[in-house]
Amino acid sequence: MEGELESLESCLERHIPPPDLAEVKRILYGGETRKLSLPAAALSSAQQRDFELQGYGFDAAAEQLRRPRIVRVGLVQNKIPLPTDTAVAVQVAALHRRIEEIVEVAAMCGVNIICFQEAWTMPFAFCTREKLPWTEFAESAEDGMTTKFCQELAKKYNMVVVSPILERDEIHGGTLWNTAVVISNSGALLGKSRKNHIPRVGDFNESTYYMEGNTGHTVFQTQFGTIAVNICFGRHHPLNWLMYSLNGAEIIFNPSATIGTLSESLWPIEARNAAIANHCFTCPINRVGTVSHHDLGHFYGSSYVAAPDGSRTPGLSRTQDGLLVVEMDLNLCRQVSDKWNFKMTGRYEMYADKLAEAVQPCFTPNVIGE
Amino acid sequence: MEGELESLESCLERHIPPPDLAEVKRILYGGETRKLSLPAAALSSAQQRDFELQGYGFDAAAEQLRRPRIVRVGLVQNKIPLPTDTAVAVQVAALHRRIEEIVEVAAMCGVNIICFQEAWTMPFAFCTREKLPWTEFAESAEDGMTTKFCQELAKKYNMVVVSPILERDEIHGGTLWNTAVVISNSGALLGKSRKNHIPRVGDFNESTYYMEGNTGHTVFQTQFGTIAVNICFGRHHPLNWLMYSLNGAEIIFNPSATIGTLSESLWPIEARNAAIANHCFTCPINRVGTVSHHDLGHFYGSSYVAAPDGSRTPGLSRTQDGLLVVEMDLNLCRQVSDKWNFKMTGRYEMYADKLAEAVQPCFTPNVIGE
Repeated sequence: MEGELESLESCLERHIPPPDLAEVKRILYGGETRKLSLPAAALSSAQQRDFELQGYGFDAAAEQLRRPRIVRVGLVQNKIPLPTDTAVAVQVAALHRRIEEIVEVAAMCGVNIICFQEAWTMPFAFCTREKLPWTEFAESAEDGMTTKFCQELAKKYNMVVVSPILERDEIHGGTLWNTAVVISNSGALLGKSRKNHIPRVGDFNESTYYMEGNTGHTVFQTQFGTIAVNICFGRHHPLNWLMYSLNGAEIIFNPSATIGTLSESLWPIEARNAAIANHCFTCPINRVGTVSHHDLGHFYGSSYVAAPDGSRTPGLSRTQDGLLVVEMDLNLCRQVSDKWNFKMTGRYEMYADKLAEAVQPCFTPNVIGE
Repeated sequence: MEGELESLESCLERHIPPPDLAEVKRILYGGETRKLSLPAAALSSAQQRDFELQGYGFDAAAEQLRRPRIVRVGLVQNKIPLPTDTAVAVQVAALHRRIEEIVEVAAMCGVNIICFQEAWTMPFAFCTREKLPWTEFAESAEDGMTTKFCQELAKKYNMVVVSPILERDEIHGGTLWNTAVVISNSGALLGKSRKNHIPRVGDFNESTYYMEGNTGHTVFQTQFGTIAVNICFGRHHPLNWLMYSLNGAEIIFNPSATIGTLSESLWPIEARNAAIANHCFTCPINRVGTVSHHDLGHFYGSSYVAAPDGSRTPGLSRTQDGLLVVEMDLNLCRQVSDKWNFKMTGRYEMYADKLAEAVQPCFTPNVIGE
């Protein structure tokens, strides 16, 4: 995008001299995240294929009884490669090809779990209010061609794949859902997780396309760690993050589609707060580019990973396709939990009662006046 | 503090040229906060009295049926003026004098509601594990000399005063509590709000001094707006913020005492996330300086105000006493709520049920494996 700042972090790097830069990074990001050394072949493939490739790592202290639980996670952000008036099947095929070449590089980087952006097989057209042709992008979560495509990738690269799509549920009246399909590294379908909170914000009113998800806060136990998927608008709801965490999620993905004028000042805050509050890793992903035929603004990318200790990686570009590879030792989650004790000090029983009162029609707020 | 960065924002201002600076501020802070023009007499008094004075304003759109509800809030951060081995009564008197001279300047700036830092009448000695002389700083919330002192200030300046102290509750067995006393601008005692979550983190283990608060999530309806006080460690608990908000708080103060090595990368995130998630203003306050006779680290100040639209003020100094004056139109809270609809889309009924399940001994997490 002409005139768009490439990334916040590159701007800080360019202007602020050390040692002030180190202090700025400590205060803003919890420190300088360790850079991963990625294979030269991966870096040159990424360059040839015209996407940004960044790698960072989070470490944990050594323990006596648990080995380090090192996992490499990949976050993918991308533009739509074809105009939105191209035939549906051709658009989907082009997105499959684009993702295939990014996943191949992820495999070269040793990625164990990869997550694509929200509704990745289509333009993010839910702000148009139009139905056709957008609803034609919907697929079965269980045996749609995108799920089959992801199962092939998963098997080929021994990689857990999180594939957020527009779902058509034929079993339940042909309803539409905003759904993440989770596929094991064996290629087996593990299950699906539907978007729990649906935006009704200006043009981003998706409430005429699909309803609030009914899959609860399922987490998925994979060979590489226990994961969950909090789709897009669920990012704004601290209770949504909390319930995934109480069910045991160590890594919570947040595939999203959001634009600069609406949410960019919220973006660095919410998922990072969730990582802190829940002693887990969070992985917000945002697409880049525009929904070309509607001028609804610029999706600003900036995908990043936040760690339970409050630190975070820099964001990917605001304008370019990218793959963020993040190595994490999942032992950090329990180590931080044992340090800060938020779950122990959370008084959840009190809040369960208070919240049950607060939703009653007869609720009287606890207000003292003079 | 020698070697301490004065403030993040002044560092960014110094190094980053416009227009990059404007973009950095937009992404980091949601934009350039409007600067308040403060009276020259106030600015020169602050300089003479050796504390920083900053003023910012948040605006709301004009409405037809509601007038703007403009309120000026004051946040005070300060060092302890005397060594910690000075006689208790002398230390308290010196703190009263220090606060008196800061409040006088706040009055010159038109402040309507002022909040002091956590346990403001004493060194923050709860990290020492010692009892005497620290417990001697405790006072009755209802008729202790600090409450009387604050009532005088409130009447004199027509100002709501939030006074966080160490409370001795003689009525209930002489127990200690970490309590904020809320005094109306008439001078009347409105009530008190106790710290709901007690830290048990390294040296900051306050659990041997006082228990989790039993005053719930009371909010206080004042002439200038409905306020609540979420003390220190409650900042880490999203449900705590939520319950104050569900009870109607438009401004939530967060008087705190926390040090750089522990929490500085969390500081800009948590209260700001709470402002976003709850469509309200949040006011985190942190003291400056050290607990001199124990080397427990540097309290890093950086008090700020976050607005419901995700924007925030710069922070006060990391090292100096300061008064932050922030003008806000409280109509912004409902305007942002009507835009984002988090309370409407929050599905609190589901979470009340889920949370009630999650606290049961027989809770089975919702985990899917292969």
